[in-house]
Amino acid sequence: MDTQAYVVQMKSKPLTLSGKVGGLFPAKPHSRRQRWEVKPSEMSRNTLNPIRAIVDGMKLIPNPAKPMISLSIGDPTVFGNLPTDAAVLQAMKDAIDSQRFNGYAPSVGYLRSRQAVANFYSRPEAPLEAEDIILTSGCSQAIELSISVLCNPGDNILVPRPGFSLYKTLAVSMGVEVKLYDLLPEKSWEIDLQHLESLVDERTSCLIVTNPSNPCGSVFSQEHLQNILTVASKLCVPILADEIYSDMVFPGCNSPSLASLSSEVPVLACGGLAKRWLVPGWRMGWILIHDRNRIFGSEIRQGLVRLSQRILGACTVVQGALESILNNTPPGFYSSTISCLQSNAEICFSELSAVPGLNPVMPSGAMYLMVGIEMDHFPEFQNDVDFTERLVTEQSVFCLPASAFEYPDFFRVVLTVPEELMLEACGRIRDFCRAWYRPPSCDGNDLDQ
Amino acid sequence: MDTQAYVVQMKSKPLTLSGKVGGLFPAKPHSRRQRWEVKPSEMSRNTLNPIRAIVDGMKLIPNPAKPMISLSIGDPTVFGNLPTDAAVLQAMKDAIDSQRFNGYAPSVGYLRSRQAVANFYSRPEAPLEAEDIILTSGCSQAIELSISVLCNPGDNILVPRPGFSLYKTLAVSMGVEVKLYDLLPEKSWEIDLQHLESLVDERTSCLIVTNPSNPCGSVFSQEHLQNILTVASKLCVPILADEIYSDMVFPGCNSPSLASLSSEVPVLACGGLAKRWLVPGWRMGWILIHDRNRIFGSEIRQGLVRLSQRILGACTVVQGALESILNNTPPGFYSSTISCLQSNAEICFSELSAVPGLNPVMPSGAMYLMVGIEMDHFPEFQNDVDFTERLVTEQSVFCLPASAFEYPDFFRVVLTVPEELMLEACGRIRDFCRAWYRPPSCDGNDLDQ
Repeated sequence: MDTQAYVVQMKSKPLTLSGKVGGLFPAKPHSRRQRWEVKPSEMSRNTLNPIRAIVDGMKLIPNPAKPMISLSIGDPTVFGNLPTDAAVLQAMKDAIDSQRFNGYAPSVGYLRSRQAVANFYSRPEAPLEAEDIILTSGCSQAIELSISVLCNPGDNILVPRPGFSLYKTLAVSMGVEVKLYDLLPEKSWEIDLQHLESLVDERTSCLIVTNPSNPCGSVFSQEHLQNILTVASKLCVPILADEIYSDMVFPGCNSPSLASLSSEVPVLACGGLAKRWLVPGWRMGWILIHDRNRIFGSEIRQGLVRLSQRILGACTVVQGALESILNNTPPGFYSSTISCLQSNAEICFSELSAVPGLNPVMPSGAMYLMVGIEMDHFPEFQNDVDFTERLVTEQSVFCLPASAFEYPDFFRVVLTVPEELMLEACGRIRDFCRAWYRPPSCDGNDLDQ
Repeated sequence: MDTQAYVVQMKSKPLTLSGKVGGLFPAKPHSRRQRWEVKPSEMSRNTLNPIRAIVDGMKLIPNPAKPMISLSIGDPTVFGNLPTDAAVLQAMKDAIDSQRFNGYAPSVGYLRSRQAVANFYSRPEAPLEAEDIILTSGCSQAIELSISVLCNPGDNILVPRPGFSLYKTLAVSMGVEVKLYDLLPEKSWEIDLQHLESLVDERTSCLIVTNPSNPCGSVFSQEHLQNILTVASKLCVPILADEIYSDMVFPGCNSPSLASLSSEVPVLACGGLAKRWLVPGWRMGWILIHDRNRIFGSEIRQGLVRLSQRILGACTVVQGALESILNNTPPGFYSSTISCLQSNAEICFSELSAVPGLNPVMPSGAMYLMVGIEMDHFPEFQNDVDFTERLVTEQSVFCLPASAFEYPDFFRVVLTVPEELMLEACGRIRDFCRAWYRPPSCDGNDLDQ
């Protein structure tokens, strides 16, 4: 009652109180807890990282006689052979020295940094202005904001299988259903568009397309991209294009952005500095809003702006350095990264192709290679998790079982290692497979080999 | 059907497909959209920043004859008079040069950085280990994770009025109800504990205590903190202590952390580099988990870890610099910031106390001062929004109307400006009030002045 008295005394009229108050000084007593009972929320229980769930359940005890080679994490900085460019580091130090980037940035990012991203990704057929860019805390937040603005609980999204596990982690924690559409390994991991189409219903609010692909390392042809757009257009489903690996494609491979091929389908293209500039820890991501047909309209844009105000995004120092990073990184830096990845991809594909029981699929970009395991020929192992666990125990080589990407009986190889380690790892995988490979049984007519 | 064929050919047994698939190639056709219809999600519509909502609705056209003085945003870097310390900048440049902090950090932060925060905040009565620390993207994310782990939709949280608007923005977007408990200006903004207690019910999952306070600049006494803990303990409600302004208190004012005063009530204490180290844009925050009575137990901790995996937190460069920032910033840096704030608080309080119609409340810390407006004496203006809008139009001084903090008929002054601007701003506020102040009417016996 003190407040009221005070307010009356001070202003001679009562305060007009706003906000959701659960009744001011209610007469009836509330029901209350009598003892401590603090439980984690449903959302925190529903937040599951499949990679963690699988890896944490594995017994990863390397063979003490062999040094560990971990080909499991998509972090190109781990081995030290792929440092970022000196120009990138200098841009950061300049940003710090300027002392102009210590305060709050607008929730969607500094205008100048947004303009720099727009300039970098704008194409005549898919022009971008600063207002089309939202800067985020890494590509993960770009994906989260995009799903958040497009989906209500009970909606569903279309997610590639195999695919990056974060989509499911985020969607499930928001009450959004995940429908997995198949990629076809025999077609260099193109989308099974017939399957994709069969999954769409009225509650489908977003199609996620990852290109170049994690975990496959595949890069869609322009024709396939156009076919995807045709399906999206026919079914009226907007696209979330995860293009964090954009431009990380091997020479000779053309890789336009999805948005550049359609003026009709609305696209939220998510990207960031993480992979191409080799600084995943800096958490600098962005959303490029492509909406030349005005289907998102101002509502989706405003929704993204509102969501960006919940948790301010990227570190201002990195934002301050962004223009210089995008404009001053020498082209040779990008091509030298790609050369390294391609060379390792060729080594790995060639070495593992010769291993009985393994079916590697040659990538065209990103930094991964997927390997199919002919489980029938490895009867000692129940599945890919079992297989990769034992590969650690015996050979101290760790590849992620593709169950982590909803794709059992494959494993993913990370290609960012130094060449000698790539060769060494492949040799050990060969030895492991030779030790455990069992030729086809003679029950049937299966007499190959 | 291609996939199945391929799989059969390659492995002689079909893939065991996992994941939520909405039926593989279902026979019945789904109902589908016939035309584009992309709407922003409920959550994005429910995400409202009250400050933006109010400020965006104001006509903020300064008087062209007077340079603008903006005392509205809690960003100490705006005027350039409060730069961060050279040691902080050097720590960042060292982190960049080391090239050790470009890759992914664990989702809860580097162990060494967590240990540094634990060491910095550990007290004999409230010890902290590295495992009690979760690093986040700014204090905002610390608050978001804390609310997320404690609250389900339909639960309610107790939030101070006046109070920082983010709590409501986050809670409402999560479907969590906000119950506002009153702070008492005549008691230096202490909590009205009777009111607080009256709001608690079975669905109350968290009590947010902001100390030192934004927007009030108040600092609770040890006795008051103990009384808060007594209520929380009686009602079995865990505390989210927003201590982003911790240790930013004027000399002579004792300011223990809430957690240091209780071994029973579980506390998630949120903080960060933003205010005390004057780098709010860097987005370096943390949660300190205090749970000596093991009421949170491992479940809440695991929930926080899971939630931290959704969107990776703080920029690794800042994480890499953190140990050095905490250990090497000279004590004189902190005290010189506080001297500046206290001096401005004294100037502002003294100047505005002499202005008829205004009732400033002297702060003891943080970087704000709240001023009550006797609206009856300013009949030209409908409310605090009207009042502060006209203050911009006529005097080019912008203070945030406290409606933005659920507290009408007050405005908030930011104290981080250079002294001459503080004086100039107070002078202009005085001129403005003198021009519009109307003495009390003679209807009653109110004959003061």
